[in-house]
Amino acid sequence: MRHVYECSVRFDDLDAFGHVNNVTFAEYLQEARVDFAHRYLAYGQRPHEGAVVVHQTIDYLAPVPFRSEPLQVSVWVTRIGTSSFDLAYEVADEKTVFARASGTLVSFDGGAEQPRPLTPQDRAVLERFTEVPA
Amino acid sequence: MRHVYECSVRFDDLDAFGHVNNVTFAEYLQEARVDFAHRYLAYGQRPHEGAVVVHQTIDYLAPVPFRSEPLQVSVWVTRIGTSSFDLAYEVADEKTVFARASGTLVSFDGGAEQPRPLTPQDRAVLERFTEVPA
Amino acid sequence: MRHVYECSVRFDDLDAFGHVNNVTFAEYLQEARVDFAHRYLAYGQRPHEGAVVVHQTIDYLAPVPFRSEPLQVSVWVTRIGTSSFDLAYEVADEKTVFARASGTLVSFDGGAEQPRPLTPQDRAVLERFTEVPA
Amino acid sequence: MRHVYECSVRFDDLDAFGHVNNVTFAEYLQEARVDFAHRYLAYGQRPHEGAVVVHQTIDYLAPVPFRSEPLQVSVWVTRIGTSSFDLAYEVADEKTVFARASGTLVSFDGGAEQPRPLTPQDRAVLERFTEVPA
Repeated sequence: MRHVYECSVRFDDLDAFGHVNNVTFAEYLQEARVDFAHRYLAYGQRPHEGAVVVHQTIDYLAPVPFRSEPLQVSVWVTRIGTSSFDLAYEVADEKTVFARASGTLVSFDGGAEQPRPLTPQDRAVLERFTEVPA
Repeated sequence: MRHVYECSVRFDDLDAFGHVNNVTFAEYLQEARVDFAHRYLAYGQRPHEGAVVVHQTIDYLAPVPFRSEPLQVSVWVTRIGTSSFDLAYEVADEKTVFARASGTLVSFDGGAEQPRPLTPQDRAVLERFTEVPA
Repeated sequence: MRHVYECSVRFDDLDAFGHVNNVTFAEYLQEARVDFAHRYLAYGQRPHEGAVVVHQTIDYLAPVPFRSEPLQVSVWVTRIGTSSFDLAYEVADEKTVFARASGTLVSFDGGAEQPRPLTPQDRAVLERFTEVPA
Repeated sequence: MRHVYECSVRFDDLDAFGHVNNVTFAEYLQEARVDFAHRYLAYGQRPHEGAVVVHQTIDYLAPVPFRSEPLQVSVWVTRIGTSSFDLAYEVADEKTVFARASGTLVSFDGGAEQPRPLTPQDRAVLERFTEVPA
């Protein structure tokens, strides 16, 4: 199961070349991830806990010009560790895959500023969204 | 030889956790790269030509809170192909390396919207900034 | 008649205080305005023509924390001149008005980099969306 | 006395027309204001107190293309009230004034989420930077 976030393209996302800037793709991934966390993970509800990105890789496949229709940003889980997990992403519309990405997050306790083990509830959610890479 | 870009941290770079957001690191890399291109590469001077990022990987090593002192973003070359090249980056200050990154760019002709071979002048510049990975 | 743009709130819109930053409100106004121009005005279709903001005033009435539901950004016309026009804006949801704003735009010809008179087609659109201030 | 903030222009500040976007000017004002608060005002030191923008007006005088040299963003005080104060701003370089702006801020207590009177220390700083409008 993949979580799909409908992401509006803003004029502000375009760079001087008139395309969505490569940096903005990382923002799109983040919006999809925050939306996923906000809906499903307990840490999405608490302001002082969360997960931080420790690694991220993006492959840019096609440029995105300004568009009124939203993009679909899919996010799913590819690995679950003790306090970390891996996500995969796809930025696409019905016709085109614009980017593929993957990354590692570490769950951390904002008060203590150190990693904390994933809770059983968080693990259960992550398992529902796990898709083993082909 | 590495190109070092002094990058100011903006309040706007902070996220709701009070740290420079992971997405902003990609922006810092871009600013260092644009500054490098603007100073040394011919395509930095022409609005309708340039190079696009086709791949990028970032490892986040330490969080960056708000600071008045700029960060040093270093950029150097690790591979030169026919129309593409690889860059490596480091975001750091005197004491700490906050992130390491690498990426592939493809030189392209904005008018034709297709890759174009690196010019001899661009190759000469890229060679000066090449550092073979250890 | 007012044009209403449904504006998603991004995590990236929040500042270190956990609210949508005041700067981002100006971005929301821009997204509503670009959406309006893109749908109704001829210059929204042509990359090298457009209108530039020469003046803008925003009153901030209530803070916006992170939210999954979009905001409604309304935009309408309050004055039509020869080559300039005034817009008014409201950022709100069903319960709260978060900001009110107004601004002046000048239609310009991107090639010549100087103001150009509004076309009869543009004037007709602007008149449809005009609401005289009380 | 005016506080002058040296503001780097980022490639990311440019919009699809190749100029610094009007929204980014509001960000420049904010960076100058935060730098001022961080250096001189007690609330700049404490994460849960601060001042919020309740009103802001910007006049855009000249476009800013990409540039390697920083802009000078000046900020000074034009009115001091009980818990609010007014600032004026100028975005310029040696030759050109690109924008003038003004705004009202309200000092607030982040814990209580309501306005708090300016402290005697804050008032003394604001008085040093006050310039009565001509």
